[in-house]
Amino acid sequence: MINFSVIGIMHGHIYGQIKCLVDAGATFHSWIARPSEHMLEAEFTKAFPNAAHAASEDEILNDNRVQLVVTSTIPVDRAPLGISVMLHGKDFMSDKPGFTTLEQLNTVREVQKRTQRIYSICFSERFENRATVRAGELVRAGAIGRVLQTVGLGPHRVNPPTRQPYFFDISQYGGILCDIASHQFDQFLYFTGSTEAHIVASQAGNVGHPEYPGLQDFGDVVLRGNGGSGYVRVDWFTPAGLPTWGDGRLTILGTQGYIELRKYLDIAGRPGGNHLFLVDTSGTQHIQCEDTHLPYGSQLIYDVLHRTETAMTQQHAFLASELALTAQLQAQPVNPSIVLQPL
Amino acid sequence: MINFSVIGIMHGHIYGQIKCLVDAGATFHSWIARPSEHMLEAEFTKAFPNAAHAASEDEILNDNRVQLVVTSTIPVDRAPLGISVMLHGKDFMSDKPGFTTLEQLNTVREVQKRTQRIYSICFSERFENRATVRAGELVRAGAIGRVLQTVGLGPHRVNPPTRQPYFFDISQYGGILCDIASHQFDQFLYFTGSTEAHIVASQAGNVGHPEYPGLQDFGDVVLRGNGGSGYVRVDWFTPAGLPTWGDGRLTILGTQGYIELRKYLDIAGRPGGNHLFLVDTSGTQHIQCEDTHLPYGSQLIYDVLHRTETAMTQQHAFLASELALTAQLQAQPVNPSIVLQPL
Repeated sequence: MINFSVIGIMHGHIYGQIKCLVDAGATFHSWIARPSEHMLEAEFTKAFPNAAHAASEDEILNDNRVQLVVTSTIPVDRAPLGISVMLHGKDFMSDKPGFTTLEQLNTVREVQKRTQRIYSICFSERFENRATVRAGELVRAGAIGRVLQTVGLGPHRVNPPTRQPYFFDISQYGGILCDIASHQFDQFLYFTGSTEAHIVASQAGNVGHPEYPGLQDFGDVVLRGNGGSGYVRVDWFTPAGLPTWGDGRLTILGTQGYIELRKYLDIAGRPGGNHLFLVDTSGTQHIQCEDTHLPYGSQLIYDVLHRTETAMTQQHAFLASELALTAQLQAQPVNPSIVLQPL
Repeated sequence: MINFSVIGIMHGHIYGQIKCLVDAGATFHSWIARPSEHMLEAEFTKAFPNAAHAASEDEILNDNRVQLVVTSTIPVDRAPLGISVMLHGKDFMSDKPGFTTLEQLNTVREVQKRTQRIYSICFSERFENRATVRAGELVRAGAIGRVLQTVGLGPHRVNPPTRQPYFFDISQYGGILCDIASHQFDQFLYFTGSTEAHIVASQAGNVGHPEYPGLQDFGDVVLRGNGGSGYVRVDWFTPAGLPTWGDGRLTILGTQGYIELRKYLDIAGRPGGNHLFLVDTSGTQHIQCEDTHLPYGSQLIYDVLHRTETAMTQQHAFLASELALTAQLQAQPVNPSIVLQPL
């Protein structure tokens, strides 16, 4: 079994990243927050009283008992940390996005190839969502024939008072397509089985939050791969009345059927999350996926121990990120409508 | 009240077009099928025994008792018919699409301007769908704030044995974006309130029906207008197990909420069609819209009598069509995936 440590706890995703490893049997060895994250330490300490609070990042990087370093530090700082981790002979698991620029990605590609360490990105909208994992099982089993296209809608609740300053600085989070759309590129590649893809068109902008000019609140992308097409829309417009942070959806269109995921809720409908709807040649069905096993944590541990790629190939993590960064870089601006015409 | 006649009955939509006028009090005066439509005459006669079967198209065009001519003839033949109808001083209501080329559209624009006749296009996925009409009422009332974007998914069942030959000849139906996506451009303009818009990117192709090379079975479009953005996906992949022809959806994202329409069914859920889901600042609700009034027929009759534009402005009908034709013309090819990678 393995020991892992945490460096950087800025985003709350870190709790899910730790949980998936601990649930799979790994030992949470030690941690340290970055200077800008000190206000988050008290709560973190309370949640993980048995992990040692390291005196420095170097202490963790040079600790031979630690095989894997995990982070949710500010996005722009993840790749430099990952490079340092790999150069210290350890594997790395980052919160998404794993990168904020193509330059970061290219450097990481080079260092990863040279060191043969793992640079994994925790795409929680797949790895931590049971309906999405179940959809993968169904698609792999041929339930909807050959996959033609995916449509991913990823609305998020903005809730500005709860956000750290980096959230409003595009140079630190990379833009909406780099950041919250990165999940979508992972899912597009995964479900279409594409190993090559390119951006057909992308858009991003601030269309409804003039008081936060550094926030991109809307973006969308059309892309095409060697396994199918995809559309992605992300936004920060989850209304106050929705009982969860976002009505995440994924529709997977195949030659013989389609799957719709209502990941986090079935609005004004069934209780709970993880709702999968399958329409195939014989009928329609609703599948509740609360019992589906989430394999990412145990697969990543296996990969650390056996130098394999069962959780996610390195190529996949890099290509998903490259697509997100390219979509961001090429995005046409979407501005608020000057004139709203009456219907 | 008005009298109307029918010239051309190729698509079954003609029954809905007639029904909305008759329900609103118009008199179905007379009709004639085109030569290629003779096999459809017996059923049509049985449905409308009181309408006179005209001896020729000229008889209808020159009949002073007829104010409006309605058609569902082969798409490529609709604009020439409409031009003839307008030049005979009558108004025109076409099944969608109203055009198959930009040249047709430009000629119709000129003739319509000169004759001041009505060239209406029956966008049945709005005009004949109560949930969509209800969504218009809610949006107009400000239920979701300012509209930012629409996502329209329009899957259709292909069922080749039931299709006439024109269905497999792109020069006759105009392509998938011209044809079944035309509904979507109407809804995009209507819900975003856009009076100007352009195509950001479009794709079309045959990805799953090599046995019907003339069929485009998949297409999608990103567009942007002065009232918001839009995404459109259409396809001919409705699976055999779906209990209706297509799981048409429309999601309307606003600054203060969103609306999702499940137009024709709620898969593996509630009975019937016309399901509207509203999420706003105060909560989520399901609204069943079976009782919503469909105003298109009575509005068009009013417009014929009073020379107004209550059903739909002429500019709207032309702009929706121009967007569909332009998206079709600029569409990048989407080809079947050569290699399907294992998941």
